[in-house]
Amino acid sequence: MNETAEVVILRLGHRPGRDERMTTHVGLTARALGADRVCFPDNAGQSKATVADITDRFGGPFDVELTDSPQAMLRNWAGKIVHLTMYGERVQDVEGEIRDAHQDAGEPLLVVVGAEKVPFDVYEEADWNVGVTNQPHSEVAGLAVFLDRLFEGRELEREWDDADRRVIPMETGKRVESADEE
Amino acid sequence: MNETAEVVILRLGHRPGRDERMTTHVGLTARALGADRVCFPDNAGQSKATVADITDRFGGPFDVELTDSPQAMLRNWAGKIVHLTMYGERVQDVEGEIRDAHQDAGEPLLVVVGAEKVPFDVYEEADWNVGVTNQPHSEVAGLAVFLDRLFEGRELEREWDDADRRVIPMETGKRVESADEE
Repeated sequence: MNETAEVVILRLGHRPGRDERMTTHVGLTARALGADRVCFPDNAGQSKATVADITDRFGGPFDVELTDSPQAMLRNWAGKIVHLTMYGERVQDVEGEIRDAHQDAGEPLLVVVGAEKVPFDVYEEADWNVGVTNQPHSEVAGLAVFLDRLFEGRELEREWDDADRRVIPMETGKRVESADEE
Repeated sequence: MNETAEVVILRLGHRPGRDERMTTHVGLTARALGADRVCFPDNAGQSKATVADITDRFGGPFDVELTDSPQAMLRNWAGKIVHLTMYGERVQDVEGEIRDAHQDAGEPLLVVVGAEKVPFDVYEEADWNVGVTNQPHSEVAGLAVFLDRLFEGRELEREWDDADRRVIPMETGKRVESADEE
């Protein structure tokens, strides 16, 4: 949202075919809920194209990138790293510290979301391993709750630039306007 | 969580193969984030089996069911209906009313999560059409944020009965204990 230091989501691991929709949903959730950028493994070009297309139509700023070396991105990250995992500390216990680092200390935040088994050095590289519950569920759900808590709901108020279209909230039915009708 | 009136998630629409993981993630998210029960279309038996297996291992109470008539379930629901859709009213504007209905007035809540195109009568049947953002993202992310806001975080504190195993929150690494070690 460009409100303070950037928040970047790193999707770790992607099995083409099997993970296409989950990776796409990680990217769309990152965009909708206030992250500035998402980075996918370089075999996730199809998910990248879908997220870029949504950004073209519904607005940004939001960037989607591929990386051939997520490990280097982790090692070289100039800021703090959060790894979302069901084995981590409880989100309700550590979210305050993470918000302080991001909003008060202005630390850019890299949020790592795993697919298949995550290598152990990711746990060590992370400043926080965070569990949105210690139950098995969905990396998309974990990311969504984490971002909503990180931004304390401000992400729901953000405005979108360069959108072609805009959905108008309705009690019943669907209303989509061309973004220049306003 | 059995704390007040029940919260049931109804997954509407399921394309076998294509939707398997998304439907499973809807079910696991419902369980992890405080719903009492999830109901899938009757062609989603594989997702049902996965959610039931996780409940066996990690605890409950949580029920997973199939229905051959989601429309009848909607028509006959004795309580309030929330339909999650990007076209709906903003969650931050209506969550207070929904909480009042559920917690204060004790109304059971049916939360509808669509897959493919949702028939228009669902919009009409719903007491609230709710958008977790008016952006396209993920029904799993929308459900997660909705439940976290409905329960105001209490779902993260729930205890699990009849679990075989329990994950112990850790700063680094993984620790899983047999549930009777305590």
